[in-house]
Amino acid sequence: MGVEFLEIIDLDDARRITGKLFSELYRQGTETVDILDADGRVLADDIESPVDLPPFDRASRDGYAVRAADTFGADEENPATLRCIETVEAGSVPSLEVAEGLCTRISTGAPVPEGADAVVMVEYTWEEGDQVYIQKPAYPSQHIAARGSDIRAGNVLLRAGTVLSPDKIAALSAAGITRVNVISKPSVCVISTGNELIEPSGQLEPGKIFDSNSAGLSSALKEAGCSVKHGGIVRDDYGELRGAILRGLEEADMVITSGGTSAGAGDILSEVLDELGRVVIHGISIKPGKPTIVGVVDDKIVVGLPGFPVSALIVFMSLIEPFIRKLSGRKASSGQVKTLKLAERLHSSRGRVHYALVMVDGDYARPIFKDSGAVAALAGADGYIEVPKNVEIINEGEEVEVVLFENQ
Amino acid sequence: MGVEFLEIIDLDDARRITGKLFSELYRQGTETVDILDADGRVLADDIESPVDLPPFDRASRDGYAVRAADTFGADEENPATLRCIETVEAGSVPSLEVAEGLCTRISTGAPVPEGADAVVMVEYTWEEGDQVYIQKPAYPSQHIAARGSDIRAGNVLLRAGTVLSPDKIAALSAAGITRVNVISKPSVCVISTGNELIEPSGQLEPGKIFDSNSAGLSSALKEAGCSVKHGGIVRDDYGELRGAILRGLEEADMVITSGGTSAGAGDILSEVLDELGRVVIHGISIKPGKPTIVGVVDDKIVVGLPGFPVSALIVFMSLIEPFIRKLSGRKASSGQVKTLKLAERLHSSRGRVHYALVMVDGDYARPIFKDSGAVAALAGADGYIEVPKNVEIINEGEEVEVVLFENQ
Repeated sequence: MGVEFLEIIDLDDARRITGKLFSELYRQGTETVDILDADGRVLADDIESPVDLPPFDRASRDGYAVRAADTFGADEENPATLRCIETVEAGSVPSLEVAEGLCTRISTGAPVPEGADAVVMVEYTWEEGDQVYIQKPAYPSQHIAARGSDIRAGNVLLRAGTVLSPDKIAALSAAGITRVNVISKPSVCVISTGNELIEPSGQLEPGKIFDSNSAGLSSALKEAGCSVKHGGIVRDDYGELRGAILRGLEEADMVITSGGTSAGAGDILSEVLDELGRVVIHGISIKPGKPTIVGVVDDKIVVGLPGFPVSALIVFMSLIEPFIRKLSGRKASSGQVKTLKLAERLHSSRGRVHYALVMVDGDYARPIFKDSGAVAALAGADGYIEVPKNVEIINEGEEVEVVLFENQ
Repeated sequence: MGVEFLEIIDLDDARRITGKLFSELYRQGTETVDILDADGRVLADDIESPVDLPPFDRASRDGYAVRAADTFGADEENPATLRCIETVEAGSVPSLEVAEGLCTRISTGAPVPEGADAVVMVEYTWEEGDQVYIQKPAYPSQHIAARGSDIRAGNVLLRAGTVLSPDKIAALSAAGITRVNVISKPSVCVISTGNELIEPSGQLEPGKIFDSNSAGLSSALKEAGCSVKHGGIVRDDYGELRGAILRGLEEADMVITSGGTSAGAGDILSEVLDELGRVVIHGISIKPGKPTIVGVVDDKIVVGLPGFPVSALIVFMSLIEPFIRKLSGRKASSGQVKTLKLAERLHSSRGRVHYALVMVDGDYARPIFKDSGAVAALAGADGYIEVPKNVEIINEGEEVEVVLFENQ
């Protein structure tokens, strides 16, 4: 119904509309994962420490646990003399209280015994029999990490939204937390369309090419924090595409198709979406990527990307990925943007955004002048530049922002 | 034997010695993986395209396949008139040759028929019955991507050392390659030592703390491209540690232990290594991390990191990770380094490298002044600064390089 009335729109409008759809239709989900599998995941809730850390008054040096008052005024010539009543190693528990005139031999990490309020480093002491000579006065709390001084039970250890990295995973372990609620991965079904496509594992037949978008988009979706369902290759046929999209919507939160380069094939998707739901975007003033389609079926987004691998990947990264990243709890940008100098003058055309593939060469971005069907271009590229619609020329040496493909 | 003679060495020397051990003892291995699981992996070999791309002369526009010579001199008033003999969609094969005066209706992506040497865009034509009127002369090769023009069979598509990202995975698929040889993951056995440690999934007992280094180091090792074996928690006991290290060396390329904070516990590891092999580094002038040990047993590296979670993680990242990354085929640095301004003056001590935890606050790095046993510090930190050994003060506002924990 609405298909005919849709006009080619600016990239900015396409982003605004797509963003609005994402916020209207999707809510972040949560799931519980083991912290050993949680690297890169995003905490769904504030995490409180269930325990005091340290869980007891802990010696932070090797030496003697003493009553600080017993050491007042001690120096090398007039050491304080204390009687050692016990040895406490890390992992063991003191059995005796340190009363006046007494001390306990203690290791780093061991619990400080009752009665003691300071630890004297072994360097400032000497022993003779059970007598310990202290050469330096201790102040109360010296070299003791008090119970709960690091964090108290019930206090927030990590905030919702924290991306789990090795340091945060160590902190969770230290508090005895092994499973956490994280933002769940949006599931996306990837479908490649086109009569010319065959599986990369198959044999090339006359007139056919290998499907490259299934693998490329799957990989990009996984990097963006999604789980991927493979919808396979679908011919340019209304019924087949309709069936594949319905199956995809049943098992995933979103469907991303690409391709349909044969004449009129692009329209099949918009017709299917028009029947099943609605077409929201049909054509964006970008190059490559103009025939991009965004629609909604059953309150789920269906995207139709162009078929050429360069176009499909760049339009995905530029238009869709930021919203998917936000949905999976990440920052909108992967952060893989580098400011470089352009190595060669680049021409663009006014009135539309132009994506230019570039190689990174030291501090320079070197444009790759190949058409968007070229696979070798993709093999040789390190990323792309988004040339704004009102810019016709970027001169050699000008600074450009390169969005990198590699996300190491 | 050699243990007693080892002195505390500078970080630079420790890095040089560790790097030398890695290059003497390890060679990169390779394994074959499916490209759908290859994101972030590093190609072990040059990959040649097994096919020409495009695999046939391909139309790059919708229109008519013609003999260019038949269109010479055509314009709107004197169009060339050709007879259309067939229609070729993408994915199908032409059956008829385009002889003089003939043409074929063709879709983007379809094979160009025998005899034709150009494609005229549909915009410059009109049809009446089987007659096609061409309003504009075509030049030979116009709008045709010739077979092999993108890449020829046998030519290198991707070089050894390429990190596989979505664009590269798409390029491999396009060439029909679904499995590739990549640098294999070094396997590392992680062992936590200390009588005070219990599993984070367990119940806290008096005098005990949860083991945080197993999970933290596992996560860091996975990020660096390793597969991790869990050696568990080992008590500060010569026989137990010896057994755990031997088991670890049997199943992994390397063993990384941490902890042993009780008095004398640090020496158990060096004694075990001295019996089984040799101690190469025993103490580094860094803070925290001074008691770090590096040894060799059965031509495999055994590392003893300090027990405090902050220390263990930072020493791993600073001393060991770069070499592990190189072994797994990655760049030595994860690239997660940010140049920021110091938010607050930082004091260090001459003669040793000082690692300072910081929070990132906009363009500023704010030092976290907590001891290295503090878990809350790790929970609140975003990364660390390495203060060189000859620097005593970094002033507020000075630029510092922050190594970030998060590797999104």
